[in-house]
Amino acid sequence: MNFYTSPISKLIEEFSKLPGIGGKSAQRLAFHILNMDEESVKRLTDAITTAKKEIHYCSICCNLTDKDVCPICSNDERDKTTIMVVENPRDLVAYEKTHEYHGLYHVLHGAISPMAGISPDDIKLKELIERLSDEEIKEVILATNPNVTGEATAMYISRLIKPMGIKVTRIANGVPVGGDLEYIDQVTLSRALEGRREM
Amino acid sequence: MNFYTSPISKLIEEFSKLPGIGGKSAQRLAFHILNMDEESVKRLTDAITTAKKEIHYCSICCNLTDKDVCPICSNDERDKTTIMVVENPRDLVAYEKTHEYHGLYHVLHGAISPMAGISPDDIKLKELIERLSDEEIKEVILATNPNVTGEATAMYISRLIKPMGIKVTRIANGVPVGGDLEYIDQVTLSRALEGRREM
Repeated sequence: MNFYTSPISKLIEEFSKLPGIGGKSAQRLAFHILNMDEESVKRLTDAITTAKKEIHYCSICCNLTDKDVCPICSNDERDKTTIMVVENPRDLVAYEKTHEYHGLYHVLHGAISPMAGISPDDIKLKELIERLSDEEIKEVILATNPNVTGEATAMYISRLIKPMGIKVTRIANGVPVGGDLEYIDQVTLSRALEGRREM
Repeated sequence: MNFYTSPISKLIEEFSKLPGIGGKSAQRLAFHILNMDEESVKRLTDAITTAKKEIHYCSICCNLTDKDVCPICSNDERDKTTIMVVENPRDLVAYEKTHEYHGLYHVLHGAISPMAGISPDDIKLKELIERLSDEEIKEVILATNPNVTGEATAMYISRLIKPMGIKVTRIANGVPVGGDLEYIDQVTLSRALEGRREM
């Protein structure tokens, strides 16, 4: 049964379709919208419409952009001989925030997962291989996530690329900085031990 | 520093202005929007715009509605001699969901709070008093929240209404059904004892 007038319940319904927003939060958001001034509401809907309309994949690295080529690919100061392969644009941003990486990226938009029905053809892998034959790339850093699908994807890509004579590396596993050994899982601890470096 | 192209960062910014949505959730929502199909995005923005445009206060009880008079006030089967006073439309819906109350409502849209600078003139109290002089009301049930501002508001309203010769009641305090005595605060326990009823 519906206790709200139709425009409100429709708004609540639309909000509750979004990820991480349940019934109660959707209700709270809907009432917040009703209390916002007209101009702020317009800014919100415009931001949604504009982002959806203008954002597409960079024609080189498949990152999200509103231009043909994203700012990273078109930046002449970046090291054009290295490509870091990530699963999605958020991972790219995570690495950009470190300010430690100055090469290019390639965004796969997913990871290979036979269980979820995602095959190598469903991610932007063909585009990566094409780049490698065209551009002068010396190293490909695989920065897919350190989980089952990410590892499998990294393994698959490394087998494809190695025969092309390009250096392929994988980001290190180990204990996270600021972590507490007591709470870190055994696999991570073993990997950290394996990857130990002389001081 | 900004790592996303402008339409995305603008969308993330607009989302993070909403209540209960922090930076990470806003990012997640923004990327979800980019992955939604055009039609669903349109449904969302339309729902926001329509709700904001069409929803206003019921001319009688100040509930939110898209008509002049809300469905509860215009329903002839409701008991027109009783008014339940609530702080906001969500509280009204909470009581409607019980299916136990069949009278009318009055929505204050807030509670008196000198600390937050909300005076009796800032809530829909004048409208309630006008209704009481016009309509044939026998009982006013004060269902403001059981917290400091809600209690103060109930006290203030009861002092205004009592001289008009109308019965004023307050919803009961007590232990919530399904609660565990062990975890209930002492004030609630004392109120539950005070309000005990013979079985």
